[in-house]
Amino acid sequence: MRNFLLLLFFTFISIKNSDAQTRARDLGIKPGVLAPGKQNSITDVLGVKVGHTTLVKGDSIRTGVTAIIPHNGNIFQEKVPAAVFIGNGFGKLTGSTQIEELGNIETPIILTNTLNVATGINAVIKYSLKQQGNEEVRSINAIVGETNDGYLNDIRGQHVQIDDVNSAIENADLEVEEGNVGAGTGTICFGFKGGIGTSSRKLPESLGGYTIGVLVQTNFGGNLQIDGAPVGEELQQFSFRDRILDSADGSCMIVVATDAPLDSRNLKRLAKRAVLGLGKTGGIASNGSGDYVIAFSTYESNRIPYKIESNLLQMEVVPNDLMSPIFMGAIEATEEAILNSLFMAETMTGYKGRTIKALPKDQVLPILKKYGVINK
Amino acid sequence: MRNFLLLLFFTFISIKNSDAQTRARDLGIKPGVLAPGKQNSITDVLGVKVGHTTLVKGDSIRTGVTAIIPHNGNIFQEKVPAAVFIGNGFGKLTGSTQIEELGNIETPIILTNTLNVATGINAVIKYSLKQQGNEEVRSINAIVGETNDGYLNDIRGQHVQIDDVNSAIENADLEVEEGNVGAGTGTICFGFKGGIGTSSRKLPESLGGYTIGVLVQTNFGGNLQIDGAPVGEELQQFSFRDRILDSADGSCMIVVATDAPLDSRNLKRLAKRAVLGLGKTGGIASNGSGDYVIAFSTYESNRIPYKIESNLLQMEVVPNDLMSPIFMGAIEATEEAILNSLFMAETMTGYKGRTIKALPKDQVLPILKKYGVINK
Amino acid sequence: MRNFLLLLFFTFISIKNSDAQTRARDLGIKPGVLAPGKQNSITDVLGVKVGHTTLVKGDSIRTGVTAIIPHNGNIFQEKVPAAVFIGNGFGKLTGSTQIEELGNIETPIILTNTLNVATGINAVIKYSLKQQGNEEVRSINAIVGETNDGYLNDIRGQHVQIDDVNSAIENADLEVEEGNVGAGTGTICFGFKGGIGTSSRKLPESLGGYTIGVLVQTNFGGNLQIDGAPVGEELQQFSFRDRILDSADGSCMIVVATDAPLDSRNLKRLAKRAVLGLGKTGGIASNGSGDYVIAFSTYESNRIPYKIESNLLQMEVVPNDLMSPIFMGAIEATEEAILNSLFMAETMTGYKGRTIKALPKDQVLPILKKYGVINK
Amino acid sequence: MRNFLLLLFFTFISIKNSDAQTRARDLGIKPGVLAPGKQNSITDVLGVKVGHTTLVKGDSIRTGVTAIIPHNGNIFQEKVPAAVFIGNGFGKLTGSTQIEELGNIETPIILTNTLNVATGINAVIKYSLKQQGNEEVRSINAIVGETNDGYLNDIRGQHVQIDDVNSAIENADLEVEEGNVGAGTGTICFGFKGGIGTSSRKLPESLGGYTIGVLVQTNFGGNLQIDGAPVGEELQQFSFRDRILDSADGSCMIVVATDAPLDSRNLKRLAKRAVLGLGKTGGIASNGSGDYVIAFSTYESNRIPYKIESNLLQMEVVPNDLMSPIFMGAIEATEEAILNSLFMAETMTGYKGRTIKALPKDQVLPILKKYGVINK
Repeated sequence: MRNFLLLLFFTFISIKNSDAQTRARDLGIKPGVLAPGKQNSITDVLGVKVGHTTLVKGDSIRTGVTAIIPHNGNIFQEKVPAAVFIGNGFGKLTGSTQIEELGNIETPIILTNTLNVATGINAVIKYSLKQQGNEEVRSINAIVGETNDGYLNDIRGQHVQIDDVNSAIENADLEVEEGNVGAGTGTICFGFKGGIGTSSRKLPESLGGYTIGVLVQTNFGGNLQIDGAPVGEELQQFSFRDRILDSADGSCMIVVATDAPLDSRNLKRLAKRAVLGLGKTGGIASNGSGDYVIAFSTYESNRIPYKIESNLLQMEVVPNDLMSPIFMGAIEATEEAILNSLFMAETMTGYKGRTIKALPKDQVLPILKKYGVINK
Repeated sequence: MRNFLLLLFFTFISIKNSDAQTRARDLGIKPGVLAPGKQNSITDVLGVKVGHTTLVKGDSIRTGVTAIIPHNGNIFQEKVPAAVFIGNGFGKLTGSTQIEELGNIETPIILTNTLNVATGINAVIKYSLKQQGNEEVRSINAIVGETNDGYLNDIRGQHVQIDDVNSAIENADLEVEEGNVGAGTGTICFGFKGGIGTSSRKLPESLGGYTIGVLVQTNFGGNLQIDGAPVGEELQQFSFRDRILDSADGSCMIVVATDAPLDSRNLKRLAKRAVLGLGKTGGIASNGSGDYVIAFSTYESNRIPYKIESNLLQMEVVPNDLMSPIFMGAIEATEEAILNSLFMAETMTGYKGRTIKALPKDQVLPILKKYGVINK
Repeated sequence: MRNFLLLLFFTFISIKNSDAQTRARDLGIKPGVLAPGKQNSITDVLGVKVGHTTLVKGDSIRTGVTAIIPHNGNIFQEKVPAAVFIGNGFGKLTGSTQIEELGNIETPIILTNTLNVATGINAVIKYSLKQQGNEEVRSINAIVGETNDGYLNDIRGQHVQIDDVNSAIENADLEVEEGNVGAGTGTICFGFKGGIGTSSRKLPESLGGYTIGVLVQTNFGGNLQIDGAPVGEELQQFSFRDRILDSADGSCMIVVATDAPLDSRNLKRLAKRAVLGLGKTGGIASNGSGDYVIAFSTYESNRIPYKIESNLLQMEVVPNDLMSPIFMGAIEATEEAILNSLFMAETMTGYKGRTIKALPKDQVLPILKKYGVINK
Repeated sequence: MRNFLLLLFFTFISIKNSDAQTRARDLGIKPGVLAPGKQNSITDVLGVKVGHTTLVKGDSIRTGVTAIIPHNGNIFQEKVPAAVFIGNGFGKLTGSTQIEELGNIETPIILTNTLNVATGINAVIKYSLKQQGNEEVRSINAIVGETNDGYLNDIRGQHVQIDDVNSAIENADLEVEEGNVGAGTGTICFGFKGGIGTSSRKLPESLGGYTIGVLVQTNFGGNLQIDGAPVGEELQQFSFRDRILDSADGSCMIVVATDAPLDSRNLKRLAKRAVLGLGKTGGIASNGSGDYVIAFSTYESNRIPYKIESNLLQMEVVPNDLMSPIFMGAIEATEEAILNSLFMAETMTGYKGRTIKALPKDQVLPILKKYGVINK
C-alpha cells in the first residue's frame, strides 16, 4: 500500500516538478532493443519479491537493508540454482564460495552496508533456524552483500539491527521501491545520489519467452553515460577529472533473477554479462569497487530439495546455444536498473552535514535531448 | 614503408571517397576522457611491436596471422608479467593456464583462425627453439588465440602455414595496420566487416603517466553502439532482430599492453576491465564468442629471467589503490580499438562468394551527427 | 604460563597414562623428510601468534574461537600478502574474495563454529575500528573461517560472544595449545575427537632456509592414515563402511604461514599444496566438507601499507623455480598438524549426551608399530 | 590380440623374474577400501576406450601418444559433460577454457609430449572434420595434454606425427597397456621410469553402483609412498635430498571417467579429488609440474547434442549429497593408477644414452613387506 501511494505521489508530482523521481523509461530513456517486463522490475520474474528497511535517523544514520526473496516457499528446503560472478572483489559478499561449490542458494539475499554484513548473516541464520521444517538445520549459507555508504552514513556506528533485516524480509513484495531506500539509502553513484534500481527484460517467445530481472545497489564511479549520452563529460563530473584518486571508488551489487531453467554454470555466465551493463553506464570497476553479481533461476522443477528423496535429480536446462538472448536481457536490464537507481534517488544530506545531490534532471534532460537519447 | 604509403593512400583517397578507411578518431569519434598515445596504438607502449601476415588468395582464402611482440629481446629468456581474463571461454586460446600459474608469458602472442591454432603453436615453438640462448629449452608455452573466420574463409582448409606465422613475427614493427589484415582478414563484427584494430591511452603524469595499449581481433556480434550512438538500431542490424540465434556469435581477442609496473594479479584485473570496453560497443559476449583478454607489462626491471641468478627477484609494482586510472585507460582503448577495426575494414568477398560489407560510413556518419558523437 | 603448566602436566601424566595427549612426533611419528621448526608450530614463523577461547559450559556448549595473528603491528595499516585456496567450498569462510582480488589480509584470522561466523566478523570489525591509527577506517575485510561442531555443541544456540573472540585475539602468544581448544573444542575428525593442531617445517639454508607453519581445525572424515599406516581400516572405522552417507562430512580449515617472501600468486599455489597433506591423512574432501586454506607471508619488507607513501611498492619475491621445497614443507606440516589435532584431543561428551572418543592410542600405537611408522 | 599375448608373456615371465612388470594389485598392493572394477581400468567405465602409439626409434626417440575415447559414437555430435581441474598449471593442456565455459568435451582426449601438442590438436581437428556428419563443422575444441619426456626423448625433434595420433585413436580398445607405452614411453616418476597407468573403482549399489576409472601419464617427483610405505625414504631417493632444485619437476596428466550422471560442476569437484590421490603417492605438485585432471561422464542420456532438437535439455544428475563415495573412488583409483604406471614401466635407455631405471622391485617388495603393505 505504501508503495502504491508513493507511486501515486510520484505520478502526481511529476506533472509539476521536473526534478521529481521518475524512472528512466518514463523519461523516454530506453536502453537496448528488448522489451521490459510488466513492471520493469526484478519481480517480473515469477516468485521473486523485494523488501527494504530504510534507516534515516537524526543527522548521521543513512543506511538500510534490501532483501531479495527467490521464491515464496522455504528456500532452505527448496534451494534454487545460483551462481556468483565477481567483477571486482574489493567487497565483503558472504556465501559466494558455497554458491560456487554447490551451485545453489538457500536463503534470501540481503544487501546492506559494509560494516553491517555480520548483522545480515545473523539475521538470515536466525530467520532460517526458526522456519518450520528447519528444526534440525545446523548449517546455513547466508548471502549478504554490501556497498560502503560511509560518506553519508555513520557507518562506523553499525546502525543496522537484526530486526531491520527481518523487516526487509517480511515486508518483501512485488512492488520495488527505488532510489534512497533500503541498502541504497546512503549510496553514491557517479558522484550523484545512487541507491536501489531495478529493471527487467522479457524475451519474445521465439527467443524462449524468458524473463530476466535485475536489482542493483549503486555506489560506484566512472564516467556516466546515459543510454550512450556522455552526461559525465557534459557535466564535467567524472573520475580522475580532478585527479582525486578515490573518486571512482565504491561498489555495485547486482542481483539477476530469471525464470529460464539455467544450471549454475549458465547462471555464472549470465552473471558475468551483467557487468557489461554496468560498463555501459560508464562504470569502470575501479580498484575500490566491490562489484558482485548474484544470479539465480526460479524455474520450479529445478529446485534442489534439502532432503534427498531420490538418488537422481531431474533437471531441464537451456542449452548453451540458446543462451545469448538471455545474456542480452541481463545486460540491458542491468544498464536500465542502474539508471533507475540514479533517476529515482533524491538529494540526501547526512553524516557530518555532507550532501550528495540527486542527478540534476534539469541539466540532464537537455543533454539527453542533445544526444538524441530522448525525443529521438 | 609499406604502411607509410598505405597511410598516404588512405589520406588521399579519403578526400574523394567517404567510404575509405579512416580511423575513428580521424572522423571525430573520441570515446572516453583520456588522451591517446602518440600513435593511438598498442605500439605506443615502449618495446611492443605488431606484425601481420594477410592471406587473401583465390576465391576462398581470407585469413591470416597477427603477432604481438612484447619486447625486442629474447622473450623466453626475459619473460614478462602477464595475465589472462576469460570473458567467454568458447574459444581455443592456448597457454592460458600456464600464464595463470606462473604469471608470465615467454613468447610472442599469435592470433589466427580457429583451425590454425596448432600452426601457431608449432611456429612459436620452432621460433623459440632456434633462438640464440634457447639451445637447451624443452618446454615453451605458446600463446595462440583465434577467432573463427569460417564465413568468409575456407577455414576447414587450414590455410595458414608455419612460414606465415614466422613472417608475422619477423615483420613486426611499430606501425600497426588495421582492418582486413592479419588475423582480422576474414572476420565479421556486428554483421559488418571486422578485423584488427588498435588504440592507446596515455595517463597524465599526475595519474602515473603510464601508457595502456590495446589490439583487438574483432569477430563478434551484439547491438553496435559507436561512442554511445545506437548505430545498430538505426541501421536495423543487431543480434536477434531476425531471431537468428547464431547471429551474435563469433569472438573477440583482446591484447592489452602497458608500461605500468604491474604484477600478474593486477594485470588480471586490468584484463578484466577490457571487457567493459567491448560491452560499450554493444558486444554481448554471446554464447559462441570466445572473448579472451591477454594483458602484459613491459616494465623492464620486472622482467623474469629464465636463468635464476639470485634467490630473490626484485620487483616494483603499482599499489592497488593507484590502479583505477589504468583500468579506465584499458576500457577506453578497447572501445576505440574495436571501432578502429570496423572503420578500417573494407568490404570483403570470400568463401562461397559470400560478401560482408564494410561499415557503411555514408549511413553511419549521419547517425553519429544526429546523436552528437561527431561535431558535438 | 597456563600453557607451560599444562605442558608440565601432560609430560607428567604421559608417564603413567598411555592415553594422555602426546604430539605425534613425541610418539615417534615423523611424516615426511623435512625438519620441523623449533616449536613444530605455526608460531615458528616469526611474528605469528595464536590465541584460543575455549567454551565448555554445562552439558551442551562445546565450542570456541581460535585467532591467528600475522604480526605484532597494526595489521590493517600493514597488510600481509595472502591467498586462499578452496579445497571444497561447502563452508562459510568470509573475506576470501577480497583476498583474491587485492592479494592481502588486513586483520587477524578467526576460526570458530559455522553459526558464529557473524560474531567473528563483528569482533574483528570492532577490534580494527578501535585500533590506534584506524580512526578513519570504514571498510574492513574480516577473515572468519569455521567448521561445524553441531554434533557435540549446541550450535543452534550460537554461544560464541564478541568478547570470546576478543579474548582469543588478546591472549594470542607463541605457545599453541592443541586438541580440544578454541575452534577445535567440539570438532570431530575421522570419527574421533578432532580439534586444533599445528606443525612446521624449516627448510635447510640450501633450499632457502624458510619456515612454513600450519595450523588446522579438523572436523572431517575419510579413511584415516597415520604416516601411511591404514589406521582407519585396522580399526574398521572409515567413511562409507556402514553406508552412512554423511559419515565423511565436516570440514577442515587450514592456515599456512611462511616467512618466505611470496606474493599472492605463489601463496595461492602454496595454499593449494596444503590440501595434499590433508589427502595424506586419508581426508577425501567430502561433499559436506568446507576445506579452505588461507596462506600468508610475514616477510617484513613486503608488507602493504594502508596509506600510500609512494607510487610504487618495492617487493622481493621467491622466483617460481625455487618454490617446490616450500610446497613440500606445507604438505608435510599440514599432514603433521592434522595428526597433532587428533593425538592432542581428548574424549569429549557434549550436546545431547553424545560422546566422541579420542583416538584410542592403546589401539593405534600397536598399529603404528605393525606398519613400521614408529620404532622403524 | 597384441595385449593378450603381452599379458600372457608377463604372466609367464613373472614366474621367473621378480623384476617383470606386474600391476600393483597383483603384488598385493590394494590402496583404499573400495573394490576395483572388472579390469581395474578406465575402460571399466562403459564405452571408454584407450589407444596408444609408442615411438621407440633409434637412440633418441622415446615418446608417443595415448588417446582416451569417451564413447563409441561421434563425440562432436554427442558431447559428454566434462570439467578440468588444474592442480598446477605449468603445462600446455589445450581446450580447458572451453570445457570450463561450456561444460563438455567434443573430441577424443590426446596425451603426448610437451612439444607435440600442436600435432595432437591438428590430428584431432582433421579426425573430427572428416567424420561423417561433421561436414559443416568449423570449430573444434581439441583436448591435448602433455608431460615433458625430454630427458629420455629427443623432444626438440618433435617426432610425433599426425598419423601417430590417428593410430592411437583408431587402435583404441578396452585393453589398456601400461608402463612405457603411448604418451608414457619416455616419462619419469619419482626418479624411476614412469609411464601410463590405469585403475578403477566400482561403488557398491548402496552407494550408487557407479564406476570411476582413472588413467594417468606420470612424469613427476616428490617423495614416493606406496600405499603408505615410505619407499622414497627407504631408497634414499626423493626430491631435494640432493638439493637439486628441479629434481621434483615433471608433470602428471590424469583422466577420470565415470558412468555416474554428473554435470560439469560435480565433475570439476571430482577432478579436484584426483589430486589427493596423487598426493598420497608422495607427489608434491612441484613448481614445474603441469598437473591437470580432466573428468567426464559417459552417462548416455546426458549427452549434449551438437544439433539442438529441443529448447530444453533433459538431464539427470547425482545430488551433491551423494557425491562423496564417488570422490573417494577417484582418489583411490588415481593412487593405484600412478602405482601401476610405476610397476608396469621397464628400465629405459634413450636420448644421449641416458638410462632411467624401473622401480627396483627386488628392493621395493621387501620394503612393502616391512611396512605391512603386502602380506599384511
